Amino acid sequence: MAEIKKEKNFSDWYLNVILKADLIDYGPVKGTIIFKPYSYRIWEKLQAIVDEEIKKLGVKNLYFPIFIPESFLRKEKEHFEGFTPEVAVVTYAGGEELKEKLVVRPTSETIMYPYFAKWIKSYRDLPILINQWTNVIRWEKRPFPFIRNTEFLWHEGHTAHKDHKEALDFALKILSLYEKIYQEILCIYGFSGRKSESEKFAGALATYTYEILLPDGKALQGCTSHDLGQNFSKVFNVRFQDKDKKLKYVWQTSWAITTRALGAIVGVHGDDNGLILPSKIAPYEIVIVPIYDKKNEKEINKFIEKIKEEVKKDIFVDDSDKTPGYKFNEWELRGVPLRIEIGSEEIKKQILTCFRRDKKERFKIKLDELKNKINNIFAEMDRNLFERSKNFTERNTFEVEDYKEFKKIMETKRGFILAPWCEKEKCEEKIKEETKATTRCKPKKIQNPKTKNQNVKCVYCGQRAKGFWLFAQSY
Amino acid sequence: MAEIKKEKNFSDWYLNVILKADLIDYGPVKGTIIFKPYSYRIWEKLQAIVDEEIKKLGVKNLYFPIFIPESFLRKEKEHFEGFTPEVAVVTYAGGEELKEKLVVRPTSETIMYPYFAKWIKSYRDLPILINQWTNVIRWEKRPFPFIRNTEFLWHEGHTAHKDHKEALDFALKILSLYEKIYQEILCIYGFSGRKSESEKFAGALATYTYEILLPDGKALQGCTSHDLGQNFSKVFNVRFQDKDKKLKYVWQTSWAITTRALGAIVGVHGDDNGLILPSKIAPYEIVIVPIYDKKNEKEINKFIEKIKEEVKKDIFVDDSDKTPGYKFNEWELRGVPLRIEIGSEEIKKQILTCFRRDKKERFKIKLDELKNKINNIFAEMDRNLFERSKNFTERNTFEVEDYKEFKKIMETKRGFILAPWCEKEKCEEKIKEETKATTRCKPKKIQNPKTKNQNVKCVYCGQRAKGFWLFAQSY
Repeated sequence: MAEIKKEKNFSDWYLNVILKADLIDYGPVKGTIIFKPYSYRIWEKLQAIVDEEIKKLGVKNLYFPIFIPESFLRKEKEHFEGFTPEVAVVTYAGGEELKEKLVVRPTSETIMYPYFAKWIKSYRDLPILINQWTNVIRWEKRPFPFIRNTEFLWHEGHTAHKDHKEALDFALKILSLYEKIYQEILCIYGFSGRKSESEKFAGALATYTYEILLPDGKALQGCTSHDLGQNFSKVFNVRFQDKDKKLKYVWQTSWAITTRALGAIVGVHGDDNGLILPSKIAPYEIVIVPIYDKKNEKEINKFIEKIKEEVKKDIFVDDSDKTPGYKFNEWELRGVPLRIEIGSEEIKKQILTCFRRDKKERFKIKLDELKNKINNIFAEMDRNLFERSKNFTERNTFEVEDYKEFKKIMETKRGFILAPWCEKEKCEEKIKEETKATTRCKPKKIQNPKTKNQNVKCVYCGQRAKGFWLFAQSY
Repeated sequence: MAEIKKEKNFSDWYLNVILKADLIDYGPVKGTIIFKPYSYRIWEKLQAIVDEEIKKLGVKNLYFPIFIPESFLRKEKEHFEGFTPEVAVVTYAGGEELKEKLVVRPTSETIMYPYFAKWIKSYRDLPILINQWTNVIRWEKRPFPFIRNTEFLWHEGHTAHKDHKEALDFALKILSLYEKIYQEILCIYGFSGRKSESEKFAGALATYTYEILLPDGKALQGCTSHDLGQNFSKVFNVRFQDKDKKLKYVWQTSWAITTRALGAIVGVHGDDNGLILPSKIAPYEIVIVPIYDKKNEKEINKFIEKIKEEVKKDIFVDDSDKTPGYKFNEWELRGVPLRIEIGSEEIKKQILTCFRRDKKERFKIKLDELKNKINNIFAEMDRNLFERSKNFTERNTFEVEDYKEFKKIMETKRGFILAPWCEKEKCEEKIKEETKATTRCKPKKIQNPKTKNQNVKCVYCGQRAKGFWLFAQSY
C-alpha cells in the first residue's frame, strides 16, 4: 500500500485500496462492479440499521418490478428529460422485439405512483409509507467505483400524505435520520441542507441532502430526500377524498441512501495503510491474531474462546499459516477497528495486546476488564474518526464573500466554500463555468456567526444575497 | 371469498385470494407483479431464515451485476440454449446503441464463474461459498403470480470445491436445508430427489429438487440444488493448484429458493376463507381485535399492553373503526395464525378468547398462562398445517405399475404417481405426450416397501426399470 499516498494522489489511492482490501472487482460491463463479500457485508450492516430505523417510522417494505414501460417514464416531463440520457433500455425479450420499450429502473417514481393512484381512495388510506431495497441502473459516462456506478444498490422510500406540512416534515425527518446515520454510524461529518433549483431532483419541489467533503477537496452527495410536492400526484392523478369530502391530490416524498456511502467510508477514513472502518459497519469488529509457538496453541485457543464468550462482537480469528507480520498488514489494510494479538506473554499475564486501527496505537488491557471496556473502546475509536472527519471538513470550509478569493481557492486547494448567493441560476451557472464549483446545498445551520449577517451581497453579481450557500467541485 | 371454492376451481380461487389478501398487484409489464408489503414481509421472514442457515454453513453474501454480456452467456452451450428463449436483452443504453447486447440475468453462473477463475489460484482458496439475494428475469409465456413470473426474487448460492465428493455433499446438504425449511418453517410436505436428465438444469450434472403437490393435483418444484460437476469450470477455466502441485478444475454447485415459495404457501394451506399462514413467516403472528364499548377502552388497552409485554411476537392491534365482524373476516382472509378478541367479558375474567385460523376454532386461555403456552400453540398449529399437507399429498400419491392406470389417473384426478421407469428419455417423452405428466424426481426415500422391489418393469416400455420415479403434471 505504502507506494501510493492518499494525500498526494487521492483517486489512485482510492482505486488501489478498494481492490487491495478486497472490496470490489470490476464487472464486465463498463461502470459496473462486483460487491465482494467484504464490501457487501458493510452494505448489509448499513442496510440493517437503515431498515430498522425506517420501520420504526412506520415504513413498510415492498417490491416493484424493475422494468418500467417507456410511456410511464415519459409522463412527468422534467423527470423524463432528467433521466433519459442515463437509462438502459430492453428492446427484445422472450425471443421477440417488444412492442413497447422497457426502461430498466433508474428510480421508481413513475412505476409506483400509478399504483398509488389505484390504492389511495380516502384520507383513511394516508399516509402511505413504503420502501424497497433494490438495484438501479444509471448509465455513467465517467464511472468511479461505489461513487458513480452504472448499477448500484440502494433503498428508495416513497410516501404520500394529506398535506404539504406532513410531507415536508417527513422528508426532513428522513434527512435527520440520514444525518444521524452518517454521523453516528459512519462517523462522517457533513452539511445537511437544501439543493438549489438547478441541482434538485428532476420533478421535485425541493431536494434535501447531506454533503460530504472528500480528501481531495471535492464534495460527495451522501443521500437524498425529496419533497415532491404535488408534482407527481397531479401527473399520475393520485387523489384522495378528504374528510371534507373533497378530492385532493396527495403530497409526496421520496428518499434514498445508496452504496455510494461505501465510497464515502473508504475515502473519508482510510489512510496510507488502507481502510479504516467505523465499528458499527465493519464486517469484523475485532480480528484476533494468535501468535503460536510450539507449545502454546491449546492455551491460546482456550484464551480465544474466553474472549469470544465475554465479548459479543463480530470476531475473526486469523489462524492461517501466514506470519503475524503479514496478518497485521493485511488486517490493517482491510480496516478492522481492533486487533488483538495473543502469544505466550499475553497468556502468562492474562492480558491482551490490542491495536487500534484509527490511531495505529498499541495498548494493553486485562482480560477481565475487556468485557466492561470494549464498548467504550469502540465508542472512543468511532468518536475519533468522526472528530477527524469534522476537523478536516472545518479546516477546508472557507467562508468567502469575494469572488477572486473564491476562484483562487477552487483553483488551488479546493474544499467547501460558504458564500452568499442571490439564488439566481445565472450566477450559479457562471460560477460553475469559471470555477467548476456547483452549489451543494443551503445548509440547515451554519456555525459561524458571521454568516448570520443577512445583508451580504452575492459573491458573483454583487446583488443582495439570499443567504450563504455551500459550494464545491463535485464528484 | 366464499363465492369461489378452492376445491372446485383452484386457480380462480388462488388468483382471487392473492389479490383480496393484499399480497400482490399486477405489474404493467405482462408477467410481472408488485410484491405488496404483506407478501414482501413473508419473503423477508423467509429470507432471514435462509440467510442465517446458509451463513452457518460458511456462505458469504456478495453482489454481481445484473447485466451479462451476451458472449458470456454463449460460452456454455447447453446453458445458453436453455435460457435463450427466456431472456430480456438491453440493446440501447446511455443514449446509444450498445456494441454488445446485454442479457438481464436469468441466473448468474456465466457472469460469476469467469471471476471464480480469476479469484481461485490454489487449494487454499477453496471452497468458495457465496450467495446473492437478487431479482432475476425469465420471460414467461404463461405467467402465474408467484409461481411463474417474468421477474422474481430469489437467492442464488454458488460454490466451488476441490473434488466431486465435497461438491455433491454440499449440494445435498443444501437440499436437506431446503427440505427442512419447507417442512418446519413453511409446513409443506413434499418429495426430495434428483431430476431426470431431460428435466435437470441446463448445464448441470444433476439437479436436486423438493416437489410439492398443489391442491389441483399438479406438482410445483419448490427449490433447486445443482451438482454442476466440472461442466462450467472447464468452460470458464476455473482451476486451482492442488496440494500435489497439479492444476485441476474445480467442482461446483449452485442452488436457489425463489418467491415461488409464496405461491406454495398460498396454494397448499389456504381455504375457502382465504390465506392460512404458518406462524414463522406470518407478517403478524397474532392479531388482536379489541371489542370496545363506551366504558372499557382504557381497560382493554391496558390489557393489550400486558399481552404485548408478555408475548414477544409480531402482534397487530386492529383498533380501526370497522366492526369486529368485518375485522374477523379480514384477518381470516389474510391468514393471521392467531386472533385474540378482547371485550369486557375477557377483562373481567382475565381470560383471552382466541381463534386459531388453521382449524377455525375458538378457545379460551387465561392471561397468566399465555406466556407459557404461546409457543406450544403456534407449534401445534404449524404441526397441524404440515400434517394436513402431508395427508393430502399421501392421499394423492399413487403407486402405479400399469400404464393404463397411469393414464386414467392423469386424465381424472391427477396427483403424484410413483411409477417404475427405465430412465430412457424416449419413454419419458412418450408419457409426457400422452398424459402431460413429466418426471418430477427420483425420490431420495420412498416410504412404501412395495417400491423396494427392484425387479419391476418400466411403466411405459416394460423393460427393466431403474427404480421408482415421481411423475406429475407440472406448474
